Amino acid sequence: MGEVKRIGILTSGGDCAGLNAIIRAVVYRATGYGWKVFGISRATNGLMARPPEFTALEIEKVDRILTQGGTMLGTTNKGNPFAFPMPDGQILDRSEEIIEGYRMLNLDAIIGIGGDGSMAILRKLAQQGGMNLVTIPKTIDNDVDITEQSIGFDTAVNIATEALDRLHFTAASHSRVMILEVMGRDAGHIAISAGIAGGADVILIPEIPYTISNLCRKLDERQAQGKNYSLIIVSEAVKTEAGQAVNCTHAFGEMRYGGVGQYLADVIHECHGAETRVTVLGHAQRGGTPSPLDRLLASAFGVAAVDLIAQGKFDRMVAWRDRNVIDVPILDAIQQYCVVDPDSTLVRTARGLGIYLGD
Amino acid sequence: MGEVKRIGILTSGGDCAGLNAIIRAVVYRATGYGWKVFGISRATNGLMARPPEFTALEIEKVDRILTQGGTMLGTTNKGNPFAFPMPDGQILDRSEEIIEGYRMLNLDAIIGIGGDGSMAILRKLAQQGGMNLVTIPKTIDNDVDITEQSIGFDTAVNIATEALDRLHFTAASHSRVMILEVMGRDAGHIAISAGIAGGADVILIPEIPYTISNLCRKLDERQAQGKNYSLIIVSEAVKTEAGQAVNCTHAFGEMRYGGVGQYLADVIHECHGAETRVTVLGHAQRGGTPSPLDRLLASAFGVAAVDLIAQGKFDRMVAWRDRNVIDVPILDAIQQYCVVDPDSTLVRTARGLGIYLGD
Amino acid sequence: MGEVKRIGILTSGGDCAGLNAIIRAVVYRATGYGWKVFGISRATNGLMARPPEFTALEIEKVDRILTQGGTMLGTTNKGNPFAFPMPDGQILDRSEEIIEGYRMLNLDAIIGIGGDGSMAILRKLAQQGGMNLVTIPKTIDNDVDITEQSIGFDTAVNIATEALDRLHFTAASHSRVMILEVMGRDAGHIAISAGIAGGADVILIPEIPYTISNLCRKLDERQAQGKNYSLIIVSEAVKTEAGQAVNCTHAFGEMRYGGVGQYLADVIHECHGAETRVTVLGHAQRGGTPSPLDRLLASAFGVAAVDLIAQGKFDRMVAWRDRNVIDVPILDAIQQYCVVDPDSTLVRTARGLGIYLGD
Amino acid sequence: MGEVKRIGILTSGGDCAGLNAIIRAVVYRATGYGWKVFGISRATNGLMARPPEFTALEIEKVDRILTQGGTMLGTTNKGNPFAFPMPDGQILDRSEEIIEGYRMLNLDAIIGIGGDGSMAILRKLAQQGGMNLVTIPKTIDNDVDITEQSIGFDTAVNIATEALDRLHFTAASHSRVMILEVMGRDAGHIAISAGIAGGADVILIPEIPYTISNLCRKLDERQAQGKNYSLIIVSEAVKTEAGQAVNCTHAFGEMRYGGVGQYLADVIHECHGAETRVTVLGHAQRGGTPSPLDRLLASAFGVAAVDLIAQGKFDRMVAWRDRNVIDVPILDAIQQYCVVDPDSTLVRTARGLGIYLGD
Repeated sequence: MGEVKRIGILTSGGDCAGLNAIIRAVVYRATGYGWKVFGISRATNGLMARPPEFTALEIEKVDRILTQGGTMLGTTNKGNPFAFPMPDGQILDRSEEIIEGYRMLNLDAIIGIGGDGSMAILRKLAQQGGMNLVTIPKTIDNDVDITEQSIGFDTAVNIATEALDRLHFTAASHSRVMILEVMGRDAGHIAISAGIAGGADVILIPEIPYTISNLCRKLDERQAQGKNYSLIIVSEAVKTEAGQAVNCTHAFGEMRYGGVGQYLADVIHECHGAETRVTVLGHAQRGGTPSPLDRLLASAFGVAAVDLIAQGKFDRMVAWRDRNVIDVPILDAIQQYCVVDPDSTLVRTARGLGIYLGD
Repeated sequence: MGEVKRIGILTSGGDCAGLNAIIRAVVYRATGYGWKVFGISRATNGLMARPPEFTALEIEKVDRILTQGGTMLGTTNKGNPFAFPMPDGQILDRSEEIIEGYRMLNLDAIIGIGGDGSMAILRKLAQQGGMNLVTIPKTIDNDVDITEQSIGFDTAVNIATEALDRLHFTAASHSRVMILEVMGRDAGHIAISAGIAGGADVILIPEIPYTISNLCRKLDERQAQGKNYSLIIVSEAVKTEAGQAVNCTHAFGEMRYGGVGQYLADVIHECHGAETRVTVLGHAQRGGTPSPLDRLLASAFGVAAVDLIAQGKFDRMVAWRDRNVIDVPILDAIQQYCVVDPDSTLVRTARGLGIYLGD
Repeated sequence: MGEVKRIGILTSGGDCAGLNAIIRAVVYRATGYGWKVFGISRATNGLMARPPEFTALEIEKVDRILTQGGTMLGTTNKGNPFAFPMPDGQILDRSEEIIEGYRMLNLDAIIGIGGDGSMAILRKLAQQGGMNLVTIPKTIDNDVDITEQSIGFDTAVNIATEALDRLHFTAASHSRVMILEVMGRDAGHIAISAGIAGGADVILIPEIPYTISNLCRKLDERQAQGKNYSLIIVSEAVKTEAGQAVNCTHAFGEMRYGGVGQYLADVIHECHGAETRVTVLGHAQRGGTPSPLDRLLASAFGVAAVDLIAQGKFDRMVAWRDRNVIDVPILDAIQQYCVVDPDSTLVRTARGLGIYLGD
Repeated sequence: MGEVKRIGILTSGGDCAGLNAIIRAVVYRATGYGWKVFGISRATNGLMARPPEFTALEIEKVDRILTQGGTMLGTTNKGNPFAFPMPDGQILDRSEEIIEGYRMLNLDAIIGIGGDGSMAILRKLAQQGGMNLVTIPKTIDNDVDITEQSIGFDTAVNIATEALDRLHFTAASHSRVMILEVMGRDAGHIAISAGIAGGADVILIPEIPYTISNLCRKLDERQAQGKNYSLIIVSEAVKTEAGQAVNCTHAFGEMRYGGVGQYLADVIHECHGAETRVTVLGHAQRGGTPSPLDRLLASAFGVAAVDLIAQGKFDRMVAWRDRNVIDVPILDAIQQYCVVDPDSTLVRTARGLGIYLGD
């Protein structure tokens, strides 16, 4: 352990709150070992560039970033190196360039911070190129398996809950049905957590089918009980009742925005009659000051990832379990995409509270 | 002042943060005089109903509402009583019914909380029916004249600024142009205040024309200076460069959502090339816990409005000037719609900071 | 399950954020079963009163309390019924009165929300009187065993972290050592979590001894590295270096307030020389709007506790494990007081970040 | 205006939220003129040092500080240069050294950010040494005359109000009298604003005498009305009923902390009987992320101050009036200390709400 190691660190995929807190912890811990840390720019793109693009990270540079959202290294959720879209339209396998970049920097190991997609790509690269890889799970969607929580999730839930808190009052004042569309990719974790915490009356997630008639029955029941308003939270990936994806086309002048929130507004207005309003929370879910819990997990993950390298344990992901960090083979974590289990506590909680959650 | 007065209070138009704080202050002050307060339901609709719909308000009922968003009385921004849309499609003048409702409740005076539109209607009703009216300005748009600030504005600016703070990080992480569309009706007060406070690079407001080429020049300049991202805040009422309103159609299956934010995303992507993302803040701007400043003003306005009634001063609006409440003829306040003055401090400030603000 | 059950609910010990969210969930779930819920006033005191003091809880009464701090039932952290301090100075065993109160209300079961001390008392009462008891762990100190988290802890950590965030800036501006004294009773959970999340330089907790010379060495090192300020977070139960409790006497005119924060300020000023300032966070740690996570756990615990009663499972506590609710014998949870484990992830994290954490 | 000016900027006195936002605005505006900005370290101390201590400020260095509390330049509220305490105990007049420092940097003008005390000192220096001075009012106490608001005040009021919001719940849960002691020096602006906004039952400020018997009568009245708790906010400078300052001695081992909050707790416990708890908000009032309003004013002041220099207008302070920046002779602003006017709207509002506010 006496030798001076050179380790790289990169953030990959969509940004979220807490990435900088991880970077800071890695730099603090590695500096404690006397190592050098290279912050790779824009995910694997920095290793693809010639010369490789990076920042030498010392404590000075990360001293103030604990509370900052986003990632100081930049990131991208485009550019799979095995099928990289070139400016001229070609799709190339550029994996070898990345491996070469790793060697050019003479790295002993690399810490990859990403969701399951990024981790799968990084692992493939590592195996192909003999890179020593440790990963840290981050995603506002919380869909990485094994870890109780991924970095960015707690903050995203906080922001979505805060939005429900605000909509609650304006819904009640105007006797409206308010629909909040939140992120989450193919998993409903944000929606169910924020929905329970924010007192939603209806929670729609991709894991559980729903019918418009049952949904409207819930709204009618509330009206019958003298409640003049309702709050609905819906995951972006929820489909129409018939199971069709709700397309979101963006070209100006043609067919416009049609997220699931707007779809629901239309069908609810028809079956239930109330005035409806849609709020699409969008990118504000990603970028805020990380919550204390996200900062805590980020710090613990960052320190633990460096310790794994010190112990020569590679191809492993750190995970949060029972208020401790454990580490598991990356493969175990990415084999299965973690969605909301219909038998889980949160589903039972939502139903126990009388929330309509599909079926 | 010894007699027991009966006063009504109603909230009219779009809801905002701080309405309940006003109601609470009115009830405390009126109870101090030994008067009775009647909280009219859903703006003037409560006076139109037979029997009139109201809540007798005592301190018990308003004791806990200081920090709550929305309005406990309900409100509506539909239903001009002089041209009231009936369920069967007819448009009727129902003003006399409201005046009659005021008399049925045997009210000595009424406090109307609303924006300039609501105040104009209430004043017309008051003059037609001999109602003793005092008004309190509220609107997140801050477009009521004479008063430095209307209730709800500070909270709305806080929420919009917080959204910019969050978008800042995700924009920088992904090298994107982020566009935040905020409310404000025909005035740019929210956009210019939040834009300066939140460090926007571009602020577009309805009061000042802009050109796409100047806007993109600003974005290009930032890129040339090594800034890989930009933040744009735009008022909902901003038009296309050519001066056309950007329609927002809502019928499902047809042409969809096309707010000005989306319009800008499309044209910027074309002229500047960067990845763009739009966030439409929507109704979350209205409903949060009121800021301390909104609660302070609301409390001061509520007490002052009751004091005006005690002094027999009617047809007057309370206003905030130089950290004090003054009162002015309602007519003075509604004669002119208060927009952002191109020669004002905030415009000069934005320009002095190098923000692109049109022209 | 067809019969109509009558269940009681009480909150005991120090208040915290999330208690009302539990009460709401219990009422929703029990109402779903068709049962009646009796909210007992001020912990067991409501059962001691004649007639027993309670509120019949329906959905109407708990509909708006999800986001409210404190407890609508009132609570007390005085008045152990087995050694109850009477106004005349006597100490009486009043346990039978409480059991009698339970019978007077004809309760089928009771849900007790409390920390380990309260749970021990409630369990003793239940066993003595044949009461059917289910408990829910709450305490900002997070010192209840088995459950990963108790209600109120996340909010308390958030508030303490926010205070560190604020002190950070003023410490740096004035080149000061800032000391934040937080709650936690005999456990350092709040201090270590907030200390890591808030970027403290020193964390002192009761579980790990410290020396003034090592503490000042840390401050000197920072100064040598050009850091002109330091942040210290300390648990209220930390003792002097020599192991003496730092007394907090409150009688006016005599020896005054001397919490451990002030003690540290004095000794640090002496050994290190810097200007020091102490902030004692106090009761603001208890009473805020519950964090989304606290509301989520509270909702899950409330529903699960009612379900335990439905299944006839008594003498059990609900607990949070791996994002699910489990239930365990109350005895298992109260047998051991859960302090910060010196071998835990958080301790290793703090040390890995170079924080001085004693020894 | 074509020439390249060299301007200095310094922050003086206690830190507050918004100072960095001013510095940023000054740098942006001055850079727009093509000028150079020198950030002087630690108030006038940087000009006293040899060589003078400063940072050359370019946009790069201030780009990210808009939302940061404190001051990147450092500050001090010690070290009046006309009576400077030397390490050896001597008190020296070091004013000429500062003037010399100004000349060594070859400055054309200097922007001084401070409260009334700092502005008086800076003005005296400017007149003695022929320095071109423009000042910007900052102080959480809001006691600078003429300007409606000083930088830092809005944020401080927000933090104090948030503390009251939190104490509200814990007070009600435990049937306690909660006392919050806030800053404000000899003025009660923070206490009266936060007290109204946060729903305090008693507000004590230095400007208005009070009696313990009237204070306890208010608490008794609340109890008689079935309110089991009360909230008191008190300014740090409030004296005992008899008009004596409440000393705060800090030497360990002797008589301890005795702020006015603790004094009140003792006397209230005696006359009213309730359990009381004191929270001293302390330095957390100074250091947070500036509120949007503080950032807005800071930006407007910073731009306007540079514009004054461009126009050759010196010995002037910028001020906020009617949503615009004006400028006035510094002397006009510092001649009179601005305290709470007993005839002002806020005093009438507090009384109108039934709050006990002395007399």
